[in-house]
Amino acid sequence: RMQNSGSKPCSCPSLKLREVVSMYFTLIAAFLVILVVALQGSVPRGSDFPYKVPLDPQGLLELSWNVSYPEQAVHFQLLVRDLQFGLLFGMSDRGEFENADLAVLWSDGHNSYFGDAWSDAKGQLHMDSQQDYQLLGARRAPEGLYLLFRRAFSTCDPKDYLIEDGTVHLIYGILEKPVPSLQAINISAIHGGLQRVQLLKPNISIPELPSDVKTMEITAPDVVIPSQETTYWCYMAELPEGFPKHHIIMYEPVVTAGNEALVHHMEVFQCAAEFDSFPHYNGPCDSKMKPDRLNYCRHVLAAWAMGAQAFYYPEEAGLAFGGPGSSRYLRLEIHYHNPLVFKGRRDSSGIRLYYTATLRRHDAGIMELGLVYTPVMAIPPGEDAFVLTGYCTDKCTQLALPAAGIRIFASQLHTHLAGRKVVTVLSRDGRERQVVNSDGHYSPHFQEIRMLKEEVAVFPGDELITTCTYNTQDRSRATVGGFGILEEMCVNYVHYYPQTQLELCKSAVDPGYLHRYFNLVNRFNDEEICMCPQVSVPQQFYSIPWNTFNRDVLKSLYSFAPISMHCNKSSAIRF
Amino acid sequence: RMQNSGSKPCSCPSLKLREVVSMYFTLIAAFLVILVVALQGSVPRGSDFPYKVPLDPQGLLELSWNVSYPEQAVHFQLLVRDLQFGLLFGMSDRGEFENADLAVLWSDGHNSYFGDAWSDAKGQLHMDSQQDYQLLGARRAPEGLYLLFRRAFSTCDPKDYLIEDGTVHLIYGILEKPVPSLQAINISAIHGGLQRVQLLKPNISIPELPSDVKTMEITAPDVVIPSQETTYWCYMAELPEGFPKHHIIMYEPVVTAGNEALVHHMEVFQCAAEFDSFPHYNGPCDSKMKPDRLNYCRHVLAAWAMGAQAFYYPEEAGLAFGGPGSSRYLRLEIHYHNPLVFKGRRDSSGIRLYYTATLRRHDAGIMELGLVYTPVMAIPPGEDAFVLTGYCTDKCTQLALPAAGIRIFASQLHTHLAGRKVVTVLSRDGRERQVVNSDGHYSPHFQEIRMLKEEVAVFPGDELITTCTYNTQDRSRATVGGFGILEEMCVNYVHYYPQTQLELCKSAVDPGYLHRYFNLVNRFNDEEICMCPQVSVPQQFYSIPWNTFNRDVLKSLYSFAPISMHCNKSSAIRF
Repeated sequence: RMQNSGSKPCSCPSLKLREVVSMYFTLIAAFLVILVVALQGSVPRGSDFPYKVPLDPQGLLELSWNVSYPEQAVHFQLLVRDLQFGLLFGMSDRGEFENADLAVLWSDGHNSYFGDAWSDAKGQLHMDSQQDYQLLGARRAPEGLYLLFRRAFSTCDPKDYLIEDGTVHLIYGILEKPVPSLQAINISAIHGGLQRVQLLKPNISIPELPSDVKTMEITAPDVVIPSQETTYWCYMAELPEGFPKHHIIMYEPVVTAGNEALVHHMEVFQCAAEFDSFPHYNGPCDSKMKPDRLNYCRHVLAAWAMGAQAFYYPEEAGLAFGGPGSSRYLRLEIHYHNPLVFKGRRDSSGIRLYYTATLRRHDAGIMELGLVYTPVMAIPPGEDAFVLTGYCTDKCTQLALPAAGIRIFASQLHTHLAGRKVVTVLSRDGRERQVVNSDGHYSPHFQEIRMLKEEVAVFPGDELITTCTYNTQDRSRATVGGFGILEEMCVNYVHYYPQTQLELCKSAVDPGYLHRYFNLVNRFNDEEICMCPQVSVPQQFYSIPWNTFNRDVLKSLYSFAPISMHCNKSSAIRF
Repeated sequence: RMQNSGSKPCSCPSLKLREVVSMYFTLIAAFLVILVVALQGSVPRGSDFPYKVPLDPQGLLELSWNVSYPEQAVHFQLLVRDLQFGLLFGMSDRGEFENADLAVLWSDGHNSYFGDAWSDAKGQLHMDSQQDYQLLGARRAPEGLYLLFRRAFSTCDPKDYLIEDGTVHLIYGILEKPVPSLQAINISAIHGGLQRVQLLKPNISIPELPSDVKTMEITAPDVVIPSQETTYWCYMAELPEGFPKHHIIMYEPVVTAGNEALVHHMEVFQCAAEFDSFPHYNGPCDSKMKPDRLNYCRHVLAAWAMGAQAFYYPEEAGLAFGGPGSSRYLRLEIHYHNPLVFKGRRDSSGIRLYYTATLRRHDAGIMELGLVYTPVMAIPPGEDAFVLTGYCTDKCTQLALPAAGIRIFASQLHTHLAGRKVVTVLSRDGRERQVVNSDGHYSPHFQEIRMLKEEVAVFPGDELITTCTYNTQDRSRATVGGFGILEEMCVNYVHYYPQTQLELCKSAVDPGYLHRYFNLVNRFNDEEICMCPQVSVPQQFYSIPWNTFNRDVLKSLYSFAPISMHCNKSSAIRF
């Protein structure tokens, strides 16, 4: 916080609002000169912001940041390329402009001001009584204005957003006219949008790459990005014949310069080994021209999303690819996000794999935790936060894990469109010990593989409990579990080493107890839901007359009834 | 907070622990001299502490305090009559010494220290990183040492107790030996205890008393307090014959000097008008000698509990007593709390009524909100926080309240032994508008009539929702609603004006739906609970095999099922 020069460094949150505001409505002299407003800490230099993401599709606003875990704070550097009369930048639960926590730079046409503000449930802006976006500096450069500011993860202000691990919904808005005051800003009339990032990147030391490391770029050559908002592009690549087993030890994005705001995420999948060959294809994934066989290319080798950096495997492990028993065919999938419908943009983005023939000590593996894909796990309609939980039980880990345990180092959370939160916790002897991965602002549109801050050791007898929270307020019938986009999943793909034969450790409610539930609801409501065996579970769920009682009893059932466990080896054999 | 002299007044919660501690481990020079440690605000004078309560049964520790709503803080003055090597004073959820928020004064035999500390779940003491008990002064006087300190209602420290409306459980402990450090204090070996008070007294302007005010003392003359921990003493008093209708406009306690720590609470009841006379009695309420007819003296005229002050009726209203249609007989009940089993103490405490013959504009009335006394509302065993809710519905207030509404000015919350929290909220057009009275640390052992901070206006069509939270962890069978001490109640006696004919506005679950619940539990669990009509509701509850499912479905039933409403006129006639 700011301090008058001459006095001791001493923060004064108990100052009255008026005093704080008079300090913070700092004039940034007409965007002209370099102005260092306050010097609580030293201003980090440009190279000190390792993470970067464009906020808007045109790239007018570019955010860089760093994370200081000792200070429990984030330093932001926001480049504004074409400043008009100010801007809003902030965070909110899911990217909405209501109930948002905002840093605002605004000009009344003469002077410019900076302050920490918040918007209420109607989108009206208010100056915050506690100023927690701390302006550290403003700097004019040929490319635009740089604003430097700092924000603690957690402030003591109930109006402030709590910066946590997982997805953060950043919002931005551009002021195109002068405004007489902060309160006069009409949020609904502002040109703005949202960008999802993982703000709190883990602070991991980067393993050294071996001298014999080679690289391979899986890129779709010279794609003309379709002039539509959303495109999933599919491109087939092929490893050389006789390519022996290697370890992928790192990968990073290759994004064509100028397209940084369009390439939303990219994944490389390995195809199924059962097929000797796969057709070459380079086109939209939803095209009728796409060969069906490409649906057998689903084993994730690499995944990247906007704002993510290079992905490093731990020193002890690498991801096996090549060699006998694995397919030579790879599928690259790129999600282009083109909301301004640019035409004719050319792109050759993709992923660069770093691999070595000197195999590391362990193969890395991927295990699915959470819920089995079955309609017995369902979400009533009209719910704002319905919770489902999947278990990887102590019995399964007892059978399937080596005595020395496994180490989880990365995690990718997955649901379909109704998912809002996902968390996996490790439980030992019936007590929760550690959060494996948690995202309280999870979005199905932002599914990164995230490196964990610390590897999580899992031993035989441990339990891994994955909990998903869903919103079905816009739906009029029950949402059942399944593969369809309007059905739901609750999955955490954990990346770990050493690889074991356990690929799937998931659960669902015992179907017999679900049958008792249908019976009970039927009798309690005096309704005749057909329980004939020929009626499917989804049909039975769809025919329930939903009310708070039927909803609550379903919740009670899921928390009480015995579970049916899927504890599967690679080729779907149960342990 | 403290500040080195010379610098500006500026609070610094961001100072490091070590600095704070070095400031706060302030030497209070061997209990000898007057020492003003810090002067953030001016030290309030003795007369500025209007509320007073003894902490321990011997009266060695006496707490006075005041409440500043503008500052959102409480100032405490603690008189320590016989200081040895220090003391602990603090607050905790229900008076336990674990997870408590403590101010500690301790001596190592040479120097004395003061600090804000907290105890963990095992009772181990820790210095708090944020010092929120602010020592303002220490003063030696003939009667003992006075400690003056201040505490904000709400601090930003998760280790701190949040001071809220309602009951606060104060705890104290006396250090009888020197201790080398705060951490060395062994809480389990300390002589200490708890005292319940309403810390946040409402800030009400006191109405002027009329010139014709008279007083009447209802006191039990020269009682020898029995040498046992708990005594309820009953004493019958009688109004003069032909005593006309008056208004009680104020009452206050009369406590015999020296017995302040023994007189726990007192109530004056009016007897039923149906009986022409009541026997005189002066003895323990549970004595076999007590005439049965005294059970018909249950209409509360006045109630006081330790720490409470005088009770004033609002200017517009008074409580009617005397006159035709009301009994001349009054019963005084005094709860003596004598844990140290003093022998031969004599007491003449009671309540002094202030009344006037010049009747005020309105008679005051008392209305019962909450749950009907019926076994259909039950609490499963083993619950730590089971919630039951009683409704005074819009339909009932529509029928029974005058168009101009009524004004609630005081409230007495009531449950039996399992009650832990009680709250009543006012709802209008389906939205919660106002809290009528709330006690998040409610104790069945501390049932005061509390004046509300502000009168609550209730209009026809409003709804009053009373919610009670129960703890049955020490019980092995269900607790049903009823009159017995091991059955439960959920009641808020609200004091209001103008008096109406509505005496009871309470609800319970529809018994038909409860029957469906017994059926459902029976079928789901494949058990045979006898649903024969001759089996009572309590018997059916007792025979349920309790598990989380049966518990959760009961919760769902109570929140879903229709209610049966009791909306009664004075003589138990339904509207």
